[in-house]
Amino acid sequence: MKEFKRIDRFLKPLVIDNPPALNLEDDCALLPYTEGKKLVVTKDAIVENVHFLPNTAPKYLARKLLGVNLSDMAAQGATPLYYFIAASLPKSTTEQWWQNFTDELHLIQQEYAIVLTGGDSVSHDGDMFFSLTMIGEVDADKILYRNTAKIGDNIFVSGTIGDAYLGLQIAKGEIKEDDAFLKERYHVPHPRVSLGIKLGGLIDCATDISDGLLADLGHICDCSKVGAEIELESIPLSPSAKQTIEKYSIDLRELVSGGDDYELLFTVAPENEEKVEKIGKELNLALTKIGCITSSNSLNLRDKNGEGVAIGQKGYEHK
Amino acid sequence: MKEFKRIDRFLKPLVIDNPPALNLEDDCALLPYTEGKKLVVTKDAIVENVHFLPNTAPKYLARKLLGVNLSDMAAQGATPLYYFIAASLPKSTTEQWWQNFTDELHLIQQEYAIVLTGGDSVSHDGDMFFSLTMIGEVDADKILYRNTAKIGDNIFVSGTIGDAYLGLQIAKGEIKEDDAFLKERYHVPHPRVSLGIKLGGLIDCATDISDGLLADLGHICDCSKVGAEIELESIPLSPSAKQTIEKYSIDLRELVSGGDDYELLFTVAPENEEKVEKIGKELNLALTKIGCITSSNSLNLRDKNGEGVAIGQKGYEHK
Repeated sequence: MKEFKRIDRFLKPLVIDNPPALNLEDDCALLPYTEGKKLVVTKDAIVENVHFLPNTAPKYLARKLLGVNLSDMAAQGATPLYYFIAASLPKSTTEQWWQNFTDELHLIQQEYAIVLTGGDSVSHDGDMFFSLTMIGEVDADKILYRNTAKIGDNIFVSGTIGDAYLGLQIAKGEIKEDDAFLKERYHVPHPRVSLGIKLGGLIDCATDISDGLLADLGHICDCSKVGAEIELESIPLSPSAKQTIEKYSIDLRELVSGGDDYELLFTVAPENEEKVEKIGKELNLALTKIGCITSSNSLNLRDKNGEGVAIGQKGYEHK
Repeated sequence: MKEFKRIDRFLKPLVIDNPPALNLEDDCALLPYTEGKKLVVTKDAIVENVHFLPNTAPKYLARKLLGVNLSDMAAQGATPLYYFIAASLPKSTTEQWWQNFTDELHLIQQEYAIVLTGGDSVSHDGDMFFSLTMIGEVDADKILYRNTAKIGDNIFVSGTIGDAYLGLQIAKGEIKEDDAFLKERYHVPHPRVSLGIKLGGLIDCATDISDGLLADLGHICDCSKVGAEIELESIPLSPSAKQTIEKYSIDLRELVSGGDDYELLFTVAPENEEKVEKIGKELNLALTKIGCITSSNSLNLRDKNGEGVAIGQKGYEHK
């Protein structure tokens, strides 16, 4: 049974009378808070051999664990504040491991102005498991949602797409290439928190790209009851990604189905595009138009001549 | 390296400038909230083969997972409101499992007026892992703390002690006794949420008994920088527990070192004891005086003649 079906059948009935849960369809939950603000809560888990490879350096685990949750905050337009960690680690975990892990947490705390506030740890011999809860806040009139894309909106992504996917293939040894940039992009997500905050109130709809560009755009379409059209060649690629996909004849569709980008994917009414471009310049971050929201009920890819391209594997769902 | 040492050395430096974390020494964290109130957050994990036996029925997993966190809320005097689940479950997990698990969540939601609000689930073949985050609220002047026991306070516990420990021995087959009451007490914690709320503002200090009466009293003493004296024979036992320890010659000290009671352990100034007794009657819940807080720096056991009894194993710390 797929995760989405399981959520629909067993978990959604538990949240029927609970608006803060957003029907379990968005990146975070939105709880009542002080006047004019909402409390934003997200909880994500990462597990060895599912979300990260065995023997991943503790500093990269810290980056990934915080990164996936910071990215959820960004997708909601929220300012992250507090985080809580639960970890299950083998008895053999060394003091050096803890030192490296917490050293990186110190750095991330400074970068994002967040603080550890609680948690739990368990000694257990088996694959490592981490769960992180992050709590932030957002002005009620600047919340970004996943289910509010409008027909006629243009679709944008931040940064470049597919680097983390290629970095993972390198880390797994499936691509024999020692590209430090791509590996770093896989190991060190750069959640777009400042971007999310600035986009609040200006754009129509946002999510972060964690499952893959196509899968996450699919979620936007499903929740918003719209379709989308993407021009494949407009997808922004880093120079390293361009070189690698040429050298190894990798299909672009593989990149847009790979996970772990942690960029923002958002939709904007045409009249607000200029302001969005200005924000990109302020942050020195590429914001690229890749397509538009349509009234169809499907997600279509086009080549630069406007011809349809078969989607193939639609994104990536954790097994 | 023991959990407490690890927290002291690696995690406490991360919360130095963060008062809501309560120096990671209490049951929950206390975040700024609306005027006159604090937001209360707790996060606990339970793992197969550490906190529960393989093949534990899903309804008991739901009870345990929610119970440990509801009990933390009770220990802080808080009203629980929202919960978030992260779970890692084998691919072979059946729809029936999900049905039974979520049916029990429905019941618990009704009993405690709480609602599922978000989470994450991962398919992973290995021991089951659950992390739960619970969010509640408390009036700022009714918060219960772990580090505020005062010399001269009397020490109370709710309910009866050791039932869950004996229930676990039965479930593991180490005691060959089919006592339904004790097994149920192990599988179905009864977190004392109503009691915690009523004690707020009246008592000096509280924690819940999750690691064992002695270990948790030790935490109170460490945090409050006081000592304690317990009269072993005054510890309240259920009829089933009395029968079982007599029949199998089980040392009382084993019971006060066993975990999973999820009763409240609290300290009260003598002048407030009458009010505490009244609350016990209102809730139809035994509240038993078992000792007092002292100015020594140790935790001592006495028999009914006032003679010292060696403590032996001091509580229980997860390996």
